[in-house]
Amino acid sequence: MANKIISIFKPKKIKDFNPSGLNIFTFNAGFKKKDKDLLLIVFDRIINVCCVYSKTSTPSAPIIWDKKNNKGKAKALIVNAGNANAHTGNSGLKIIDKYVEALTQIIECNTNEVLVSSTGVIGEKFDPKLIINKFKKLNSKNKNSLLEASNAIMTTDTFPKVSIKNVILDNQSFKIYGIAKGSGMIQPNMGTMLVYIFIECEASKQLMTRLLKNNLDNTFNSITVDSDTSTSDTLMMFSIANKKINFNKKNFKILNNKIFELMHDLSLQVIKDGEGVSKLIKVNILHAKTKNQAKKIAFSIANSPLVKTAIAGEDANWGRVIMAIGKTGENINQNKIKVLFGKNIVCENGSISKKINIRKLDQYMKNNIIEINVKLNSGKIYHTVYGNDLTFEYLKINADYRS
Amino acid sequence: MANKIISIFKPKKIKDFNPSGLNIFTFNAGFKKKDKDLLLIVFDRIINVCCVYSKTSTPSAPIIWDKKNNKGKAKALIVNAGNANAHTGNSGLKIIDKYVEALTQIIECNTNEVLVSSTGVIGEKFDPKLIINKFKKLNSKNKNSLLEASNAIMTTDTFPKVSIKNVILDNQSFKIYGIAKGSGMIQPNMGTMLVYIFIECEASKQLMTRLLKNNLDNTFNSITVDSDTSTSDTLMMFSIANKKINFNKKNFKILNNKIFELMHDLSLQVIKDGEGVSKLIKVNILHAKTKNQAKKIAFSIANSPLVKTAIAGEDANWGRVIMAIGKTGENINQNKIKVLFGKNIVCENGSISKKINIRKLDQYMKNNIIEINVKLNSGKIYHTVYGNDLTFEYLKINADYRS
Repeated sequence: MANKIISIFKPKKIKDFNPSGLNIFTFNAGFKKKDKDLLLIVFDRIINVCCVYSKTSTPSAPIIWDKKNNKGKAKALIVNAGNANAHTGNSGLKIIDKYVEALTQIIECNTNEVLVSSTGVIGEKFDPKLIINKFKKLNSKNKNSLLEASNAIMTTDTFPKVSIKNVILDNQSFKIYGIAKGSGMIQPNMGTMLVYIFIECEASKQLMTRLLKNNLDNTFNSITVDSDTSTSDTLMMFSIANKKINFNKKNFKILNNKIFELMHDLSLQVIKDGEGVSKLIKVNILHAKTKNQAKKIAFSIANSPLVKTAIAGEDANWGRVIMAIGKTGENINQNKIKVLFGKNIVCENGSISKKINIRKLDQYMKNNIIEINVKLNSGKIYHTVYGNDLTFEYLKINADYRS
Repeated sequence: MANKIISIFKPKKIKDFNPSGLNIFTFNAGFKKKDKDLLLIVFDRIINVCCVYSKTSTPSAPIIWDKKNNKGKAKALIVNAGNANAHTGNSGLKIIDKYVEALTQIIECNTNEVLVSSTGVIGEKFDPKLIINKFKKLNSKNKNSLLEASNAIMTTDTFPKVSIKNVILDNQSFKIYGIAKGSGMIQPNMGTMLVYIFIECEASKQLMTRLLKNNLDNTFNSITVDSDTSTSDTLMMFSIANKKINFNKKNFKILNNKIFELMHDLSLQVIKDGEGVSKLIKVNILHAKTKNQAKKIAFSIANSPLVKTAIAGEDANWGRVIMAIGKTGENINQNKIKVLFGKNIVCENGSISKKINIRKLDQYMKNNIIEINVKLNSGKIYHTVYGNDLTFEYLKINADYRS
């Protein structure tokens, strides 16, 4: 595989801290050559957790295992990177049985209080001892930070993804924070490949379900790198502190908004690290008839290879945007469509705009972030989807040229 | 734009002939720098025609114009290449009015007996005189062949697409033949960008509708270069001779089979000239529950950027095939899936096959044509979709790098 080219969007500085209420351990377990590839989180006590998984018909073993076992309580989380344990049949489930069983004996909890995730190559089995061998090193001297946790779950990612927000409710201040991984095989049908969110207040599974339901659609369910949906998409939200909050309407709204900010931030980081990305594309569909219509058209544009290659080539080829709108077969009137690249109008009233300014447009296309604004003028609904361009680099990463 | 690299699948020799019953004229009208870009076909008499068009929501002006005007009769066909006359609003329709009007005065027919198609850049208007100026050259000295007709409608195509078949019905022999163009923006929702089929027997519009309905789904509606559906997809079938055939059950079946062969041949030529193609991918879905399920899964595999890049890299990455099956969300049992690359089994019973032979598999992946056989083992339905790999060349052609 070609050498990794670091995303131009890699943040110069990534926030970090050592959270309380949980113990982070990271190791190289042998899935990767030398980089960290195993994350273990042990919570101080048994806490509430809420999980959502890929809607794929071919879920990985960890997803099948978690869905079957977990009842909304968590004492520990085990994540390995480099092997997805996907399409591994019963053996894949037995591998998990073994390393979870081994952990429960050390930290003294039930099997159904351990959650597991895996990311990496599909279809290969592995020896559970790779993971079990590291359990003897679970002591307070080896504890790691949140950033190190994010580092340990990377695969083709070129930077670790961390987000931390402060919340103040009824004069009580606490943190919500999360980590994510994902770079290719990204059009989540739920969350990105792996996302873990921690909130430092007492929250029931029901409350966390509402928070996720409110915010998934506009964050992780509105991003696409390559239209390919992973077998391993998983998002888990953990309530890690017993700080009691009265979740009345006002307080819920404040927390809900902060959760949106956090999830939006993490989902954008995934797109900014999309395989081979040279430009981030923000597709805004405005004045649509229904949410479904807006979303369908937005994804059609963001996933179109011809739109994505044009953006990579800094070419404001708006005809391809019209094509991508059309191929959805949605009931719209093409004579009402207005398309703008950023603030630069390109077409309106069914054909090229008289106000088009090629010089300004060419200048705009050199930006790292390109906004495609489509006004359908047939309703009041809007939706935004984030994607990125299609580059030689994406092909290099994924073609694995062996010669 | 980068220099054209000729498809490795370009046929060494392309059949040609000078058909009777129609007069072919080709010109350089100025849409392209010097290559032929205008095709005019004038039929000896007014004949039956049957047309199918893209189901796009943003159809090109020629599609809107034809649908509005044509009543199933044809005296002439005008096709230009280099400008699609798409998303050009009312002006686009008026441009057509002008050049059709001019032609009807020369060949003495009604407006609704002229059919038009355009292919090329979306969103740009043009001067109808480019086309009208050529009408004065419509004399028998300038007549061209079928191959020259196909040549004149190419855009990013690297070879002209022609197919000719002989049919014998009730001891009468006649030809059916067709031309097609298309290379990028190919996942037709009907036919490829432009296809014209001519049958040398008397056929009603109803009969031709049946022939197309029977054969579209397994030919032009089962190919994909890049999942992008053109605004201009058009297929027209012309009954160009008055040879009378008794279309009883047996004769219809024979003709129907020949039409399938012709359409299959032309649709494969389109895929073999897919932009940047280095390998043709044939995806066979077997033992599916429904036709819709088989088709959805086949297209999901054939359109997956991760599958396409793996094939380009000669990597039998079957995990990505499993991913692409899963992302459809179809109700299938992953433990029953069997996947083979050609005859080489890779997985069965929910995980990697014990019979996998990496050496043979690697050898197989070097072929120009890769078959992905997926047995779902949940029904009796099968479907085949043809696609191609995703290469640097595709990006070069479409990114229009302006450096």
